[in-house]
Amino acid sequence: MKTVGIVGLGLMGASFAKALKEKKLCEKIFACDINATVLEKAKNGNIITEGFIPENVDAMLEKCQIVFICLYPGATKKFLDKHKNSFASGAIITDIAGVKSILIDESEKLQSAKLGKAFFIPGHPMAGGEKEGFEYSSANFFNGRNYILLPFADTPPEKLHNFEKLIYDLGFKRIIKTSAKNHDHKIAFTSQLCHVIASGLVQCAEDTNITEFGGGSFEDLTRIAMINAPLWTELFLANKTNLVYHIESFEKSLSQLKNLIETENETDLKNYLQNVREKRIKMI
Amino acid sequence: MKTVGIVGLGLMGASFAKALKEKKLCEKIFACDINATVLEKAKNGNIITEGFIPENVDAMLEKCQIVFICLYPGATKKFLDKHKNSFASGAIITDIAGVKSILIDESEKLQSAKLGKAFFIPGHPMAGGEKEGFEYSSANFFNGRNYILLPFADTPPEKLHNFEKLIYDLGFKRIIKTSAKNHDHKIAFTSQLCHVIASGLVQCAEDTNITEFGGGSFEDLTRIAMINAPLWTELFLANKTNLVYHIESFEKSLSQLKNLIETENETDLKNYLQNVREKRIKMI
Repeated sequence: MKTVGIVGLGLMGASFAKALKEKKLCEKIFACDINATVLEKAKNGNIITEGFIPENVDAMLEKCQIVFICLYPGATKKFLDKHKNSFASGAIITDIAGVKSILIDESEKLQSAKLGKAFFIPGHPMAGGEKEGFEYSSANFFNGRNYILLPFADTPPEKLHNFEKLIYDLGFKRIIKTSAKNHDHKIAFTSQLCHVIASGLVQCAEDTNITEFGGGSFEDLTRIAMINAPLWTELFLANKTNLVYHIESFEKSLSQLKNLIETENETDLKNYLQNVREKRIKMI
Repeated sequence: MKTVGIVGLGLMGASFAKALKEKKLCEKIFACDINATVLEKAKNGNIITEGFIPENVDAMLEKCQIVFICLYPGATKKFLDKHKNSFASGAIITDIAGVKSILIDESEKLQSAKLGKAFFIPGHPMAGGEKEGFEYSSANFFNGRNYILLPFADTPPEKLHNFEKLIYDLGFKRIIKTSAKNHDHKIAFTSQLCHVIASGLVQCAEDTNITEFGGGSFEDLTRIAMINAPLWTELFLANKTNLVYHIESFEKSLSQLKNLIETENETDLKNYLQNVREKRIKMI
């Protein structure tokens, strides 16, 4: 692979750039960002070969064999629509959006990997952090993480194979292939519901000195409540139906547990917790 | 300090023993456990000086200048009642129970530090782990942790001072002094509510393969769901009123957040998350 393009040099995009550079996975790294200072920093730091402002992004896209679009979900959709004819012939175009149904048609029947002359392979690298932006990015950010891929029926096998190889080379440990529908259902649980819970828990804390009484549990449960509000507002709303479904399922579990405590049903409470313990251990 | 006694060589008790030994904080370490194999292991591993079976514990207690009672809350109460006249004159007796109102009279007015000829200073080392028992104990288990102390009005200042010094020497970074009532209210939030949430979340997971879609959030939120069921059943029930209060307060926060998502109230949702982010950052 000669040239990789990255659209958006935030935490994720810049971590891709740094991992590509450090692991010597391509010859050139081009990047586009709305922030000229970030582009300069990345170029001076020898992380990218050349920076492009959004007005010149088409000139960048046509030179790249692979393009990572590292934008918020709505912006990703707009970017794909606007620039679909600018991608190089045979290039692989991918994204990192945390919801997929807004990018891929619900039915998925009419869909094709074809994006102009290029091929779109939607993806979701399962990595994140409570500190966003270029300065917190790292070449090791993806080590040991999961990557969800959503190939289409007509995605050329050799394109998919090459992309999967690159994903492992970047440090990810496991690739899961699934549909947009299943992705959004699962992610609403493992990711969005967890952010909702963490946020609700911080919201109901009586004061900010509460961590004086902390033994690690509250801290672990609420680290992700240092949330990027605009991004997660977008993610929650774009996946509303799945998310509300899981919130209500969690509300039922919680209410069941509360009831066992309120009625001092020691036997059932102990069984509930024992089952939970065994179920969680199986998840390792 | 010459001799420290430890009642119960589980995760906590054995971590105390190992920290005392490694940091050379006393001359002799005596320990009592119902499991003779554990006592043997601890003695052969040169962690304790001598092991005592429960039948002989009085012979141990009378030789100790400080005794850590590392039992479940109900067992702690029974142990104190049964052996209160066996402690050495002037000794410091402490415990690790995660609820305190069952040990200390509600009013706290009639209470005194006096326990036979010794002094009781209730405590709660804020450390724990999803893997319990002697084999997971460690000399570094308490490093950087909080310790909650509940001294009485008549606790001799020099006894308290000596005990606090020992706590810092064991690796703890902060001591919080409070009442049983406040302890149980705060702990119901930072510890018990978190365990309830983690358990409810695992309970409503659709399957145990869900971590294939995990990016760290679900894993972090549910590590404590690998819960010691008998211990936490006891803790939840012993602190029922406080815990149910906090569960209901969390249910309200969660419901408010769900409502903002359901009604697609983007502005208020973003504000809610932004406030949560700022509140959580202040807690660091």
